Amino acid sequence: MMRTLGVNISSLGPGWIDLEFDHHEDFTQQHGFTHAGAIATALDSACGYAAFSLMPDNAAVLTVEYKINLLRPAKAARYLASAIVIKPGRNLTVCTATASPTDNRDQAIAVITATLMTVVGRDIKH
Amino acid sequence: MMRTLGVNISSLGPGWIDLEFDHHEDFTQQHGFTHAGAIATALDSACGYAAFSLMPDNAAVLTVEYKINLLRPAKAARYLASAIVIKPGRNLTVCTATASPTDNRDQAIAVITATLMTVVGRDIKH
Amino acid sequence: MMRTLGVNISSLGPGWIDLEFDHHEDFTQQHGFTHAGAIATALDSACGYAAFSLMPDNAAVLTVEYKINLLRPAKAARYLASAIVIKPGRNLTVCTATASPTDNRDQAIAVITATLMTVVGRDIKH
Amino acid sequence: MMRTLGVNISSLGPGWIDLEFDHHEDFTQQHGFTHAGAIATALDSACGYAAFSLMPDNAAVLTVEYKINLLRPAKAARYLASAIVIKPGRNLTVCTATASPTDNRDQAIAVITATLMTVVGRDIKH
Repeated sequence: MMRTLGVNISSLGPGWIDLEFDHHEDFTQQHGFTHAGAIATALDSACGYAAFSLMPDNAAVLTVEYKINLLRPAKAARYLASAIVIKPGRNLTVCTATASPTDNRDQAIAVITATLMTVVGRDIKH
Repeated sequence: MMRTLGVNISSLGPGWIDLEFDHHEDFTQQHGFTHAGAIATALDSACGYAAFSLMPDNAAVLTVEYKINLLRPAKAARYLASAIVIKPGRNLTVCTATASPTDNRDQAIAVITATLMTVVGRDIKH
Repeated sequence: MMRTLGVNISSLGPGWIDLEFDHHEDFTQQHGFTHAGAIATALDSACGYAAFSLMPDNAAVLTVEYKINLLRPAKAARYLASAIVIKPGRNLTVCTATASPTDNRDQAIAVITATLMTVVGRDIKH
Repeated sequence: MMRTLGVNISSLGPGWIDLEFDHHEDFTQQHGFTHAGAIATALDSACGYAAFSLMPDNAAVLTVEYKINLLRPAKAARYLASAIVIKPGRNLTVCTATASPTDNRDQAIAVITATLMTVVGRDIKH
């Protein structure tokens, strides 16, 4: 889905990542702004990548749950989604991420807190 | 975005709605399952429609925030997203919604709680 | 803390529980209503008990996270907190719970969704 | 309830506040640690005060919803709850807050995101 949304990695390190993505007319809401679903998806993915960066080599990452607050109308042409791990863990990792216009990073449009699970081997059931 | 995801209305009434949508290869995650972003988007929209159904004629609806728990792998061909209003309000409405395979409604794959705002006129700022 | 709040078990079974507790003047907010903190605590505990009822004998339960929506002013004399497991799991269990006046169960004052972790042995770190 | 929990204001300014509170044996969980309910209550209150600091003189503040992640066992003797407004608004304000041991602020034990409502006059219904 990241390819469909046109999300790409801007920069990353252990426990954090910056993703960027463009507004796209296929992902708009009723007022023509970027749909919250696209923003939530990018933020969820950013949290997943940030958590994954601290996991063992043989691990996969699953989102257990997240909560998003939509703060401002999403009417930018391009967005930055910045995620950081706030608590790594063997089983569970907690991340936060913020989406903002790439040219106006002080005006966050959404903030997310996500819980992610480390999945080792083929066990991808919760 | 609802058109992009192929979401359609199955049935609806005052304070509730059932949406349906297919798995689509453009919206998959790393294991080939339906991406949580697509499911969250459908659930958020279902909550929006359910809330909107109880709002005045001249109102629009905005999602303030939501929280989603991903319960099971999303590996169905088609999904049902069922939303209900649990507390209507003049300003704020609270909804819950559940996504499940249309042919296995007992096996919910995700549950959401959302807070939505009634917006009257052109004032779509929070 | 359950003793301090005067919470007691009304009825219970595998995967669900009903708790009851009185309004107490030590746990009020600025308008004299029952403080959201007392209600959240009772709801969190109800989710914990409901989840615990499905766990192995040697397990303990930890709350990973919860989200609460406060729906109406909490001005009853006595409350019911009803929790159910919506997804049991080996590691993680998801519950929802609702608080309402015991004499007016249709008027929910708060709803919670909680993720709880099964902890086996002495490992109570996340 | 803040008096019952022994919460006091450490420092504050427009849009932020630091509260402190002691572990108290009346508010413990099954392992003797500080109960999540006490921590959540302090964090919710911190968010309320931070939001209230930016509201008009005649306004009251109500918590609409919050979400808390419990990150580490709460086994300190004294805690700091630090809240900031991340998005002020005429109707709705979004805050985040973190609880940590006062002598170890890098080891957050809980993080919360809260939505608060400005209530003017006597209208304290949602």
